[in-house]
Amino acid sequence: MSTDAAATKNLYWAGFDLGGTKMLAKILDSEYKTLGKKRRKTKGHAGVEMGLERMLQTIHLALEEAELKPGQLAGIGVGCPGPLDLKEGIIFEAPNLGWYDVPVRDVLQKEFGCPVVICNDVDAGVYGEYCFGAAKEASSAIGIFPGTGIGGGAVYHGQLIQGNKSSCMEIGHTKVLPDGPECGCGQYGCLEALASRLAISAAAAQAAYRGDAPALRAMAGTDLSNIRSGILASAIEEGDESVMNIILRAAEYIGIAAGNMVHTFSPEVIVLGGGLVEAMPDLLVNAVAKATRKNVMPTFKDSFKVIAAQLEDDSTVMGAAAWAQKMIQETTALKSDPNP
Amino acid sequence: MSTDAAATKNLYWAGFDLGGTKMLAKILDSEYKTLGKKRRKTKGHAGVEMGLERMLQTIHLALEEAELKPGQLAGIGVGCPGPLDLKEGIIFEAPNLGWYDVPVRDVLQKEFGCPVVICNDVDAGVYGEYCFGAAKEASSAIGIFPGTGIGGGAVYHGQLIQGNKSSCMEIGHTKVLPDGPECGCGQYGCLEALASRLAISAAAAQAAYRGDAPALRAMAGTDLSNIRSGILASAIEEGDESVMNIILRAAEYIGIAAGNMVHTFSPEVIVLGGGLVEAMPDLLVNAVAKATRKNVMPTFKDSFKVIAAQLEDDSTVMGAAAWAQKMIQETTALKSDPNP
Repeated sequence: MSTDAAATKNLYWAGFDLGGTKMLAKILDSEYKTLGKKRRKTKGHAGVEMGLERMLQTIHLALEEAELKPGQLAGIGVGCPGPLDLKEGIIFEAPNLGWYDVPVRDVLQKEFGCPVVICNDVDAGVYGEYCFGAAKEASSAIGIFPGTGIGGGAVYHGQLIQGNKSSCMEIGHTKVLPDGPECGCGQYGCLEALASRLAISAAAAQAAYRGDAPALRAMAGTDLSNIRSGILASAIEEGDESVMNIILRAAEYIGIAAGNMVHTFSPEVIVLGGGLVEAMPDLLVNAVAKATRKNVMPTFKDSFKVIAAQLEDDSTVMGAAAWAQKMIQETTALKSDPNP
Repeated sequence: MSTDAAATKNLYWAGFDLGGTKMLAKILDSEYKTLGKKRRKTKGHAGVEMGLERMLQTIHLALEEAELKPGQLAGIGVGCPGPLDLKEGIIFEAPNLGWYDVPVRDVLQKEFGCPVVICNDVDAGVYGEYCFGAAKEASSAIGIFPGTGIGGGAVYHGQLIQGNKSSCMEIGHTKVLPDGPECGCGQYGCLEALASRLAISAAAAQAAYRGDAPALRAMAGTDLSNIRSGILASAIEEGDESVMNIILRAAEYIGIAAGNMVHTFSPEVIVLGGGLVEAMPDLLVNAVAKATRKNVMPTFKDSFKVIAAQLEDDSTVMGAAAWAQKMIQETTALKSDPNP
């Protein structure tokens, strides 16, 4: 390790999770213990300027709680909705926030005077689980996070796979049923179109409408906006077999995509996360593990574990900070190496 | 770079391609110019002992042509049929050769007194194209090599993706049509079952049998063993539209798998290689490029190129040597770093 990198060892790191509805800042010591923490609403649609100002304030408030000054930060990692320009630290497009071409990195670097690294929020979450959570003993891991869409990430021997183009592993847009249902991306048969929480809710709403899911219908009617993960879990507990079958069918499709990833990366751990998994971890972990095993060659059948994410809301903020530390220290080491 | 690694800079490297029917050794200088070369039949079924002896002789003969002695080799890279134990340098299983549990690395290290690195032959081929061929300007690349099966490999920012379990990227066993035709691996709907040269030949043989491919029938009858890549290309030239359509259909499936890889790695270059591609490079490159673009999200449509492999029989031998050099120098650098 170079002298510069060694010098940063005793400093502090900030992680930031810029979500669609809330933002979260954490200040971490060199052991990744939380010294300060601040959560606020994002209010993205109030505009970029106000949003960036809220980000700065949130980090300042977390620093205050940690009793630290900006000058004591070695770096900041920010998990952002994509697509992103990773090199220049810009959010190209965050439709959920109504933000376009936002130079997050430069704004934060100017304010706090330390290096800032942005990455995709799901990538950060998977990296967080890899460093501190469900996959912390693994050499390689992939993450699958079913939500409104399906986010994914992959860490191969410590390296977050970020692709050539702008951001993350788009496992939600790998095809599991060519010529299958239309996806929000304009393609057909993407995993997301078959197994996201939204796709599941749409199937469950149809079952409720037909009278095949009485418990669900009583709890939430047939409006997709009401059929959230917790409601789906409750409907299964109340005995709606059709809802259970919809979840199991979705798990079959996740197993196809996960099996393809096993044939691609051969990860030791497949982390399942997000609201749907949090609402019914055992059901989904078991069903996806079984479906994935069904879809791989014999040599791979015992090569991986499927595990539920462990860090909940902390995965992105922790992963963003850890990834920033890795990137910043590698850059520093490279610059200070007289013969790289 | 460490002193040890620097000291190896002026030495020579050997690459070795252990194929099902022939083996090839090359001696390369530090610029990867060929100084010596020897090709022989593998004769795998004559037994492991004789096969290993032939490997040693072949490298010795290439060294003689290069006018070098074993002590001048910095290392040897060997591309092998898999599955492999990469760490221990063992071929677990090479059914084409009838070889099981063969300690290739130790045998070669003992004979030549230099470090030996083995890797999967297709991985080596893709790494060769990445370093010296079709993808040499790219930061990341994947390779798809349709043959009897479909081999694949991926290089992500200089790192060959080798997985957690034994060897290579098995793109041939990613699923492109769940519940589709049976594959040799025991699964259903794998890319290999739909788009390998063997699957294409089987479809073409049916067309010939039905009378829909008269040129093919005249040239090769309906025996799969006779319907090789060159014959398929000739049948298309002679006007067999049904054969052309079979190739285009296969390209559609390759495009689904390639599209999934774009959503996974976002490679800059997709290299197509192997006998089928060599026999009809323009047809396959154009069809696969079109099919892959059809299967990716808008943001990825212009993010990659599809290019035919350029090194032909040299890709594996060159790639194996280059990968061995990288592995050996990284290990040396790590060992000599007082504070890694």
